Amino acid sequence: MDYTKYPALSRIARGEVKAHTVLKNGRVLNVFTGEILRADIAIEDGLIVGVGDYAGEHEVDLGGQYVVPGFIDAHLHMESTLVTPPRLLENTIRCGTTTYIVDPHEATNVKGWDGIEFILNQTEDVPANVYVMLPSCVPATPFEMAGCVYTAEEMAKHADHPRILGLGEVMDYVSVVGAEPGMMAKLDLFKGRVSDGHAPGLSEKDLTAYALAGIATDHEGVTFEYARAERRLGMHIHVREGSAARNVETIVRGLVESGMDTSGFSFCTDDKHIEDIRREGHISHCIRKAIALGLEPVKAYQMATINSARCYGFKHLGAIAPGYQADLVVLRDLEQVDVSAVYCKGTDTAHWHAPALELPADSPLRGTIHAASVDASALCLPVSAGESDVIGLIPGQIVTEHRRAVLPQENGLFVARDGFNKLAVIERHHETGAVGVAAITGFGLRGGAIASSVSHDSHNLLVTGDNDADMLCAVEELRRVGGGYTIVADGKALTLPLPILGLISDRPFEEVDAKLHEMLAQARRMGVPEGIDPFLTLAFLALPVIPAVRLTPRGLFDVETFSFIG
Amino acid sequence: MDYTKYPALSRIARGEVKAHTVLKNGRVLNVFTGEILRADIAIEDGLIVGVGDYAGEHEVDLGGQYVVPGFIDAHLHMESTLVTPPRLLENTIRCGTTTYIVDPHEATNVKGWDGIEFILNQTEDVPANVYVMLPSCVPATPFEMAGCVYTAEEMAKHADHPRILGLGEVMDYVSVVGAEPGMMAKLDLFKGRVSDGHAPGLSEKDLTAYALAGIATDHEGVTFEYARAERRLGMHIHVREGSAARNVETIVRGLVESGMDTSGFSFCTDDKHIEDIRREGHISHCIRKAIALGLEPVKAYQMATINSARCYGFKHLGAIAPGYQADLVVLRDLEQVDVSAVYCKGTDTAHWHAPALELPADSPLRGTIHAASVDASALCLPVSAGESDVIGLIPGQIVTEHRRAVLPQENGLFVARDGFNKLAVIERHHETGAVGVAAITGFGLRGGAIASSVSHDSHNLLVTGDNDADMLCAVEELRRVGGGYTIVADGKALTLPLPILGLISDRPFEEVDAKLHEMLAQARRMGVPEGIDPFLTLAFLALPVIPAVRLTPRGLFDVETFSFIG
Repeated sequence: MDYTKYPALSRIARGEVKAHTVLKNGRVLNVFTGEILRADIAIEDGLIVGVGDYAGEHEVDLGGQYVVPGFIDAHLHMESTLVTPPRLLENTIRCGTTTYIVDPHEATNVKGWDGIEFILNQTEDVPANVYVMLPSCVPATPFEMAGCVYTAEEMAKHADHPRILGLGEVMDYVSVVGAEPGMMAKLDLFKGRVSDGHAPGLSEKDLTAYALAGIATDHEGVTFEYARAERRLGMHIHVREGSAARNVETIVRGLVESGMDTSGFSFCTDDKHIEDIRREGHISHCIRKAIALGLEPVKAYQMATINSARCYGFKHLGAIAPGYQADLVVLRDLEQVDVSAVYCKGTDTAHWHAPALELPADSPLRGTIHAASVDASALCLPVSAGESDVIGLIPGQIVTEHRRAVLPQENGLFVARDGFNKLAVIERHHETGAVGVAAITGFGLRGGAIASSVSHDSHNLLVTGDNDADMLCAVEELRRVGGGYTIVADGKALTLPLPILGLISDRPFEEVDAKLHEMLAQARRMGVPEGIDPFLTLAFLALPVIPAVRLTPRGLFDVETFSFIG
Repeated sequence: MDYTKYPALSRIARGEVKAHTVLKNGRVLNVFTGEILRADIAIEDGLIVGVGDYAGEHEVDLGGQYVVPGFIDAHLHMESTLVTPPRLLENTIRCGTTTYIVDPHEATNVKGWDGIEFILNQTEDVPANVYVMLPSCVPATPFEMAGCVYTAEEMAKHADHPRILGLGEVMDYVSVVGAEPGMMAKLDLFKGRVSDGHAPGLSEKDLTAYALAGIATDHEGVTFEYARAERRLGMHIHVREGSAARNVETIVRGLVESGMDTSGFSFCTDDKHIEDIRREGHISHCIRKAIALGLEPVKAYQMATINSARCYGFKHLGAIAPGYQADLVVLRDLEQVDVSAVYCKGTDTAHWHAPALELPADSPLRGTIHAASVDASALCLPVSAGESDVIGLIPGQIVTEHRRAVLPQENGLFVARDGFNKLAVIERHHETGAVGVAAITGFGLRGGAIASSVSHDSHNLLVTGDNDADMLCAVEELRRVGGGYTIVADGKALTLPLPILGLISDRPFEEVDAKLHEMLAQARRMGVPEGIDPFLTLAFLALPVIPAVRLTPRGLFDVETFSFIG
């Protein structure tokens, strides 16, 4: 409450003066009592000042429709959508999500604070509340070649920013429970605030030590039993439903069957593509699905609103009550989450559209592909006559298999044929010239190359193909456009430029989506099988924290033994 | 978490090293999941580091007894017990209450910050967590003659004290909803922290404006309907069960019947005498009573622990989980709240006793009776031949009746006889010489006078009697001992000195209690009827916010019209 404004607001609350806007005749969800009550909502200066019987200068008759608080996405990455944050928001706000807890992990890996500031700037003037958790694991492992090493010292410079809440998902649990000093410094910096977790499959005792370190949330509970084990430790569970990872069914089913208190559970999307958002919704989809699974509707809405607000310490979000921000979703139907209007700070968002990106040509966020020039010799992979290491792709999964095979070769060098492709990762932040090369199987590409500057988490250049010429051409194409996706066949490139950080397009979603569909069709024609998304599969092949084997600019990495191979 | 200690604690949590203390074989209440699970509790350095299977240097076999988190009294006044805070705690800790949210309203009315600091100092080295809310309404009304005017400016000097949480119960709702600048400054000072409420019987619209001001709690909901109305506004409800005001039955019955979510409800005692605590318990009594009323035991314990912790933003209290302070109550029986041991910061409190008070003779907390010398002329009450105003006492209640009666008189001056007593209030902080005199009925005192320096909220000297000589003698007696309770008959005084602030004894509870019983018997012999507690009834006769009519040093006050009479 801004107490200079309170005298006027109090008079409105007491009914002495009309409110600026009153939503009349709603069926209003009270997340505190769990009741749905017929009432008007009086709004002034972006705030709810009263819920009851009110008159306004502007009145909107809701005709008995439901009104619920704006939804909160408790954890997401915005960069993964390939478009600017406002273009994502244009889609998600329509689904009723008005608050976002964002971890700009990808942008930070490329450009450190500049990347975070870009996300903050892009979400400054939008009809939504976007908060940032500072990425805790940049780089993801000590031997990564990311664009930045983001330390506690760097974080401290911006920790007081009003939209920075705490520490982003702490993936490096080994550093936590092992009390690595750099990690301790980060946790200490955000003591008393929220540090988000990311802790899949820890043992009971490791999970205990992880919670003891003060890590407050997790979204990696993929079974109810695991989520319950975390909840017993006092952790708050973000039930995730994104494009790939979908945990609502398992966890909500467990909640319904056990009757466990749901106040420690929220919803998040983590990573969700815009086409999926358009098809099925956003947090709205989580609510709808949870209700269909038998959760009481009120509890599902609490998970989407007040539970997340309490988790992150918001006293002004997540409820329809005096003093709360007027973020409201009007619904034709409660169980179907059929959205008819979304208000943010008391304003109907229906006519808001994401602005075109304005970013100077010399912005440090452009031209981030600083890869050394690569020639054919860099792509040579010497192999023996016996078996060699191969990365085996598995359709529909991002984990890989560590295989051994006799590889096709000429003059002692691997040649990509007979079902094998060549994969190269080229360091692209500091022109070190570091290049890792390996053989992969299961990608199926014939007659060309595919390359991308989106490669978690370091976002170096990844290229795969069946001939070195097209692979080199693809790398040159990405250097030329400043990053993106490209498919090269016979020296001709089909490209989606992602000139911002090498991760994000400056074009509208429809244009990006059309180009992606064209490229996907082309990849299928070149042999990439169903179950392998050419760009998403590629994007995880350099991430040395996902089993079983990955390729980094420093060479092939065995995730199981956590060491380089050979 | 102190991260310098984390490396060692993590090793214990992971089971690599033994904990200092392990409570073995408990049935441990998990307030997050609502489960009761067989487990050991590993304790190191006052913290719970793990709940599961642990070994310790020192092991205590609980033999299957229940273990629940230490209870939290969400709102209380310590001064009302007449003994020092540690002497109160000696009684309440044994009932399992390990955390106290204290409003030192009385001490502040007498001595401002010195009074608050006394409470803080007295509770520094006790096996309990005592937090302070800064009193918001000192003086209670602008025309009071208290010892201190406690402004936002004064508060700001100490607002960052680690045990000062927020703003104490805001009784002056008129100043809140009317946006009085001094009140706004106090609320603004604690923005983002907790401001406690005290809002009996407000209209729906006034309550809305009160909540809009950011006031977060209330303990004055004496009906379920009123508490529910507050809860709908997002306020947290402290269900009070003290010596006089007892709201558990009404509100818990409402919770049970409605099935309403209990997470926004806590327990508090507000004012509870030690003899009542010894007889029936403290917060333990609230839990027991709630369970007997049909509330699920787990929910009753949540109201006594985690709900209050969340309300006040404690991340280290209210649960048995890694990183929480090891405040634990061991119970023989869950429903009877049969306490067998209480741990605070991992240490068994069984052998702790309150130390004798050490307070220098020249402490500003002693010798606080600065009343001007009073003679018989000051006690004269001129009356007319017609009807005069009379304060009518009602047995068993603290509200009074505004009566009119023809008073017994001599020479135009009131004489206390025929069922009427004389009442005088003498300003005692600044030797102003202000004296208010009135007639009262229903007190029944014959053959002497009763006086007290405990008189809410200003704690001026109150004296009543049937003859001026004994009344003057009683006032002199209280000046002599530095405040207290006294009964004078024929010039002989029976006195309980309360030399600290004129409110608190420096003697053990048993001694104080014995003297009180002796004085009560004497008062009954002198005619004070059952239903009227001579000192407690007296104590509220000067509080000009309780209907219908009160006496202040400035004269008789009509609480209904909020103005002085005549």
